[in-house]
Amino acid sequence: MGLGSALSSLMSKGLGVTATQFFQLGSAAEPFVFGTGETLPGITLAYEVYGKLNDEKSNAILLFHALSGSQHAAGMTPDVPGTDERWTDDIKQGWWNLFVGPGKALDTNRYCVICVNYLGGCYGSSGPASINPATGKPYGKDFPSVLSSDVVRSQAGLLDHLGISTLLAVIGASVGGLLAINFATLFPQRVKIVMPVATGLRTTVLTRLTLFEQVLAIENDPHFKGGEYYDGPAPEYGLALARMISHKTFVHLDAIENRARQTVSQPNGQLSWYKVGHNVESYMLHQGKKFVKRFDANAYLRIINMWLRYDPLKDAGVESYEDLFAISRAAGHHYLIFSIDSDFCFYPEEQAEMVAALEKSNVSCMHITVHSDKGHDSFLLEPQLYTPHLVYTLEGRWQKSSLDDVQEVE
Amino acid sequence: MGLGSALSSLMSKGLGVTATQFFQLGSAAEPFVFGTGETLPGITLAYEVYGKLNDEKSNAILLFHALSGSQHAAGMTPDVPGTDERWTDDIKQGWWNLFVGPGKALDTNRYCVICVNYLGGCYGSSGPASINPATGKPYGKDFPSVLSSDVVRSQAGLLDHLGISTLLAVIGASVGGLLAINFATLFPQRVKIVMPVATGLRTTVLTRLTLFEQVLAIENDPHFKGGEYYDGPAPEYGLALARMISHKTFVHLDAIENRARQTVSQPNGQLSWYKVGHNVESYMLHQGKKFVKRFDANAYLRIINMWLRYDPLKDAGVESYEDLFAISRAAGHHYLIFSIDSDFCFYPEEQAEMVAALEKSNVSCMHITVHSDKGHDSFLLEPQLYTPHLVYTLEGRWQKSSLDDVQEVE
Repeated sequence: MGLGSALSSLMSKGLGVTATQFFQLGSAAEPFVFGTGETLPGITLAYEVYGKLNDEKSNAILLFHALSGSQHAAGMTPDVPGTDERWTDDIKQGWWNLFVGPGKALDTNRYCVICVNYLGGCYGSSGPASINPATGKPYGKDFPSVLSSDVVRSQAGLLDHLGISTLLAVIGASVGGLLAINFATLFPQRVKIVMPVATGLRTTVLTRLTLFEQVLAIENDPHFKGGEYYDGPAPEYGLALARMISHKTFVHLDAIENRARQTVSQPNGQLSWYKVGHNVESYMLHQGKKFVKRFDANAYLRIINMWLRYDPLKDAGVESYEDLFAISRAAGHHYLIFSIDSDFCFYPEEQAEMVAALEKSNVSCMHITVHSDKGHDSFLLEPQLYTPHLVYTLEGRWQKSSLDDVQEVE
Repeated sequence: MGLGSALSSLMSKGLGVTATQFFQLGSAAEPFVFGTGETLPGITLAYEVYGKLNDEKSNAILLFHALSGSQHAAGMTPDVPGTDERWTDDIKQGWWNLFVGPGKALDTNRYCVICVNYLGGCYGSSGPASINPATGKPYGKDFPSVLSSDVVRSQAGLLDHLGISTLLAVIGASVGGLLAINFATLFPQRVKIVMPVATGLRTTVLTRLTLFEQVLAIENDPHFKGGEYYDGPAPEYGLALARMISHKTFVHLDAIENRARQTVSQPNGQLSWYKVGHNVESYMLHQGKKFVKRFDANAYLRIINMWLRYDPLKDAGVESYEDLFAISRAAGHHYLIFSIDSDFCFYPEEQAEMVAALEKSNVSCMHITVHSDKGHDSFLLEPQLYTPHLVYTLEGRWQKSSLDDVQEVE
């Protein structure tokens, strides 16, 4: 067996059956206070852990999922209590299974990887679809607005519970990357390495417009009713349209065209007036329909809203990105930043802006652009593009060579 | 008075009060046959004419409007019968008033400019909101699907009526450019110069996705009812969302941000759940709301559908763009093609593809890129960028200098 196939065999080894755990934070006496000032007497976080925490508790990595992801990053979790019909076959394999496991980029033989469903989500953490103990019915519109700092603070609460004072690394891609940066600058002493993948520092105008269209797509659905739809049909058409609007930014257009060509034409090619005229349209409808089975519209809105209101400067009490990253500089953080050259969701310019701000604040950082024809979704699909740098950085092998290491030639 | 202010004074002269005229095409005996095979016993076209047709009838220019435009390209038309409440103050001044008039790019002292509302539209030409004589009620969903070849053939019928056998030029920007090319290749003997501005040859995947989102935004509105809404509330939320989705591609993002900053915050900042959080969002809502007052959702869908199904190759019975433009080559057409460097609706790559195909077929053509920070809408707002080439081309002064004209220096 050559090195290549040995490596490939090692890489294909997975975590097997995994399970979601639950953690309660807050109580009637000490309620959880959201950034908006709203409170809940207690919240639940759904999380998974891969690999073992070492005795020093120094090998923990906190991984933030993306917009529609979950705590289930790797392995095979057959069921999660409290997710109703949403835990579909599509998501029973972890969303980052190619990156997390024995011998993989986040090597579970060495590291303890923790991933938590966002507060406000729909995969086991408290969210609008959870039962409100005060009424015995789902919260619906009464579930508070969630800010990224709420997500980050709630996860810090879980780390306290697990006895982890300092993480080896926080990592997140896409919206998860926004949270990773928010975590590192809100709790600078609790993290050493920050790894934002295909993400940004702020909500750009284009992103804001695309997100706002998604808000309206759901709000316009007659079944939405301000979020009070749990005793009737869900706003599925609105959520499906929202998903299509975002899906367009996740997948490279050439890939959408190729996938569409391979998609079996959908049976219902006729809407109430419009006749579906191209396989790209059928493909998008199919994506939308698949998504509504596994996601809750209210949770989707909470996360979109969080993204629209992302403001790490306000959270850290500073006024500029330079000041924000001065916090990272003081804490001695190292950043590994990935760009995807074909990314239409978080454009490479956004990571370049991040790197410029980090360098201005003299933060140790490395910036890698991967070249891919897959667009934003590359971070889910192409571990070979990311694994070497992730491995080296986690091993601390990112330092610049000292002059002593350079052999003199002449 | 210096040359600059003399020119500026000349440019500011307008056409004054203008008026829409109507033309009937087809009859019960000779119905109008749509590309889909559907028929109507007769159709009405609403059109305006600026400048006088000369005795030789050789100075006519046919101008195609864009997606939401009308026959009213220039001057001030106070009212158009049959447009209900849609002829709002916003559109009483012609959409290309900066380009059409005495001394302007399309100089009405020299040329006779004709602009026609698309068949299927909502500004006086037959469309879904028109009264179906068979029922005494609006056509609604029973109005046929319109293809670009239907629009083009109907306008050729109007030219017959006006006694114009050959146009000096066809010109169109955006969707109007698609129609200009369709006209020139369907009726090659009826045109000399073709001027496509900020347009393309085909519906790209990105455009298809954006258009399909707009279809679904309208289809999902509970008031749409397959297009049978004229006896109740119109699908205004769906149409407003569709407009926002397209508006994002028309206006440069920086301009959206700047305009939003200057927009007075909208009073209704609260949707059924979502709180409007940024002036860019208020600005877009305002754009959407303004639009639904002046446009009909069914007409919008007809035009979007026409764009999605645009196929000049099929219309001309050829299989490649090379063969399509061989038609132009045989007819001796000259093309003047404009790109806008900041265009997000029809990207400069699309015009480059067009020019490459024209050159492959040895068609006389000139390609000009204007540099603008206004995005796609530049073609409406910045006559100074387009006027010189439009004037020279219409005067026939586009020919390459012959070698005799080049002075020998040595």
